Amino acid sequence: MNQDKNILVIGAGLIGTSIALGLTSHGRKVFLSDIDSGALDDAVKVSGASKHIDQEISIVVVATPPASVAKIIAAAAIDHPQAVITDVASVKGSIFRELELLGTSGWDRIVGGHPMAGREVSGAIGAQGNLFLDRPWVIARSSKTSPEAIATVKEMVEALGAFPLFRTIEEHDRAVALISHTPQVVASVLAGELVDAESSYVELAGQGIRDTIRIAGSDSRLWTEILSENSEYISQQLTQVAKHLLDFASALDSGDRDSVTERLVKGSQGRDRLPGKHGASQQSTATLVVRLDDKPGELARLFAAAAKAQINLEDVRIDHSLGQPTGLVELTVAQSTIEILRPALQNEDFVVIS
Amino acid sequence: MNQDKNILVIGAGLIGTSIALGLTSHGRKVFLSDIDSGALDDAVKVSGASKHIDQEISIVVVATPPASVAKIIAAAAIDHPQAVITDVASVKGSIFRELELLGTSGWDRIVGGHPMAGREVSGAIGAQGNLFLDRPWVIARSSKTSPEAIATVKEMVEALGAFPLFRTIEEHDRAVALISHTPQVVASVLAGELVDAESSYVELAGQGIRDTIRIAGSDSRLWTEILSENSEYISQQLTQVAKHLLDFASALDSGDRDSVTERLVKGSQGRDRLPGKHGASQQSTATLVVRLDDKPGELARLFAAAAKAQINLEDVRIDHSLGQPTGLVELTVAQSTIEILRPALQNEDFVVIS
Repeated sequence: MNQDKNILVIGAGLIGTSIALGLTSHGRKVFLSDIDSGALDDAVKVSGASKHIDQEISIVVVATPPASVAKIIAAAAIDHPQAVITDVASVKGSIFRELELLGTSGWDRIVGGHPMAGREVSGAIGAQGNLFLDRPWVIARSSKTSPEAIATVKEMVEALGAFPLFRTIEEHDRAVALISHTPQVVASVLAGELVDAESSYVELAGQGIRDTIRIAGSDSRLWTEILSENSEYISQQLTQVAKHLLDFASALDSGDRDSVTERLVKGSQGRDRLPGKHGASQQSTATLVVRLDDKPGELARLFAAAAKAQINLEDVRIDHSLGQPTGLVELTVAQSTIEILRPALQNEDFVVIS
Repeated sequence: MNQDKNILVIGAGLIGTSIALGLTSHGRKVFLSDIDSGALDDAVKVSGASKHIDQEISIVVVATPPASVAKIIAAAAIDHPQAVITDVASVKGSIFRELELLGTSGWDRIVGGHPMAGREVSGAIGAQGNLFLDRPWVIARSSKTSPEAIATVKEMVEALGAFPLFRTIEEHDRAVALISHTPQVVASVLAGELVDAESSYVELAGQGIRDTIRIAGSDSRLWTEILSENSEYISQQLTQVAKHLLDFASALDSGDRDSVTERLVKGSQGRDRLPGKHGASQQSTATLVVRLDDKPGELARLFAAAAKAQINLEDVRIDHSLGQPTGLVELTVAQSTIEILRPALQNEDFVVIS
């Protein structure tokens, strides 16, 4: 990153402070501001940024709560007439629509940004300079954003260790509606069906539903904000999912097995489109289930055995049986290595179940 | 298990052969039968069971494809007038309804069974005597099943290392509709929406949707069978989920944030009802994200460090970033131990991200 670019981060929350910390630790000059002077002082201490802006700013990063982002971008465009201005909100269209209403200047210098930290980290844990390491960071352009402004944000994103992905505003919002917001709502609604269920029903729950509704545990206040900002695309998606569920129910009601199979096959094909490890296809992996005594050290022994056999694990899943003092561990590896791993583990006295 | 009980397993597929193998390896006398004499010969070889039934049978286990189970139970009730008869199909009501139509004798000796192996293991891997180790195995009674017959099946289930859970037929089928079959359909439908999506959208997919649709990769032929057998309860559930998704869409459309929040909170409450490790609540855990170089041995080193700190891991998740040569590992531990684990890992030069 160009060493002569001074950065101003507005918003001293987890994301803003993490950006400031990540950039100062790479020797960059960073300024921080926040309307809460106590929070600002804490963030300055943690991040090594400065709160007295005494140099010209090249990049402004707006890291405030979603509802305030557009107004702060508009003000920053006036206050810092040479700066590229970007943000970190997880929905982009609502911000750019508000910017139009506000009659903002400097459209060519405004670049949407969305660091995808993979999970919503709450404030309690505190800022980390490496929060964005190896994470995708969408750089979302409007029709008026200049290539130079995009290049400037790209440099900053790469300095933070994230990898940039380039989309239009609309592409970004439609994409996150499909691959993030709608799954969140579906998981929440499905999990909600458990609230009034008999305990004797819920007790039979296994790993399948556990995975399906895992993200239903996300922060409801934060997600209300996110979903509300992207409501149009999400509502379209939800309506389509609901229609397809009702079609599925009809196929079951009428005993149309071909239609049921077709819909299940389509789901499997959709899942196979997800990017696998390092972009690899998901189809080339296989799983092995190992039974472990539930005590510290057994997992370490298992992974040491896998490493000794030179097997790289694609995924690991621990499956706890209700009320049992042992655990089942599912290892996902490349299909071609499974018959190397199995005897290697058995030689070390592991109970390989399937 | 009572040593004088001879067992006949009908159906030499993965489940039947695994049951036979598990019981012979505990010194039980087991007979196997199958209409496919080639498959039977293989299964006899693998399991140590016998195919020539020359002793009185005390337990018949029907492990044939779902559609044939009722007829085979009815025949077994006549052929083995002293035996307790059970099965391993994943839906029970449809079998018992067919038994009524068939005018079956010996109702008191018929016990429904459902070993919940946690994931659908395909035939390719082959039988394992310990397939059921630490797994729940539902023992489902009709109103006419005798306590003695239930006790006999319980003994067998425990001999296989599984742990028995007792339900009525209806409880079982309603429960699996809720916690297994409906999540399967929802995951398949949601994954199906990806089939025609732009690649630039799907590329942004992260761990959230990956977990939500993981089970969409299940065997579509097998699941067509399962879903069709339990269609009534599943259809009811799907209709309800669809209605709640449409209600959610309406709340978004009308900008009713309180309603959105309320629905998200309900999802979180539902998720908290899932049994945690050893029946513990899910709420008392916390997660830590660690960055690993993607090479054999790094996971082993990580788990060795956790073990050294005497920390027991509740769950592990490997999060591969698209196109990156490193991986992020999420460790779930008891809330109370997270501030022991963090410095322990940092001391061993691990990059702890959040």
